[in-house]
Amino acid sequence: MKFCSNCGNTVSQIIPEGDNRPRYVCDQCHHIHYQNPRVIAGCLPIYEDKVLLCKRAIDPRAGFWTLPAGFLENHETVIEGALRETREEANANTEIDALYTVFSLPHISQVYMFFRARLADQNFSAGAESLDVRLFSEDDIPWDELAFPVITDTLKYFFEDRLTQNYPARYEEIIRPLKKTEVN
Amino acid sequence: MKFCSNCGNTVSQIIPEGDNRPRYVCDQCHHIHYQNPRVIAGCLPIYEDKVLLCKRAIDPRAGFWTLPAGFLENHETVIEGALRETREEANANTEIDALYTVFSLPHISQVYMFFRARLADQNFSAGAESLDVRLFSEDDIPWDELAFPVITDTLKYFFEDRLTQNYPARYEEIIRPLKKTEVN
Repeated sequence: MKFCSNCGNTVSQIIPEGDNRPRYVCDQCHHIHYQNPRVIAGCLPIYEDKVLLCKRAIDPRAGFWTLPAGFLENHETVIEGALRETREEANANTEIDALYTVFSLPHISQVYMFFRARLADQNFSAGAESLDVRLFSEDDIPWDELAFPVITDTLKYFFEDRLTQNYPARYEEIIRPLKKTEVN
Repeated sequence: MKFCSNCGNTVSQIIPEGDNRPRYVCDQCHHIHYQNPRVIAGCLPIYEDKVLLCKRAIDPRAGFWTLPAGFLENHETVIEGALRETREEANANTEIDALYTVFSLPHISQVYMFFRARLADQNFSAGAESLDVRLFSEDDIPWDELAFPVITDTLKYFFEDRLTQNYPARYEEIIRPLKKTEVN
């Protein structure tokens, strides 16, 4: 951030009075520009004994398999976001069962939230951001070609919980070194 | 948003190519400025059979009782945010038990996340954003003076779940009309 989105003048990083961390503050109108983590909403779509995965057409991790998920939009519930991403990436209609996994990723200031969901039928296909969309049984999951740790962990929890048919919502932190470009 | 935080020129609201909703886009450098919901992290601090509440010193809802909670910061886990807010608002040290309630509030583009937590001792006091901090047993909860529906609902769930000592994490949507000033 270099300029104030409110008045167009330059901003400086300072600790505002009564605050305890540096913020971008406008040199002219003194507006404080807070920056906060973003939420990624997604589904774990289930059909019979299989899980739906999408092969990513875009970076990061193009060519790797993921659960349908994406940035939550303003004025959207987390479930609406999860369903929208599942439609956009897999042209799939799902019904939500329950919140399943929540991941905190402080190094990239993201919070992931996945919901267990039931695929209505086998009518699905690759959306614009996917190269392929497929159903995988547990034995066929491409564990070495999964896009992100949050995908691996959600799938592991699911197959583990499926043994007892008990799917508690889980919160997990994925800690990685802070990338220099991502500081503020 | 009126100006580009990247180059300082004016922005316009347009639907970028390949997108399906209006964004602020710089007229000069064409940077797309996404706006996304924010996460509020908080604790439900328990001491023996009592719950800790803070009387808000600041708007919105100054003078009403709340659980300690506030905006999650960049490069912070959700638990770190919840513990920090509990220290800041109540000068209280807590240990987290588990994720408890998640609320989606699309009209204000917020996602609340409360964790059940144990107060280590009765050493707590009002922080800068609180007028008072007190422990309340179920019979003494000031139900008509609670600050927000997410507080009321989290407390109701807690006292209900306490009967069975089973505290599943819950996701809930609180739907209200969109305020005109809050559109984008």
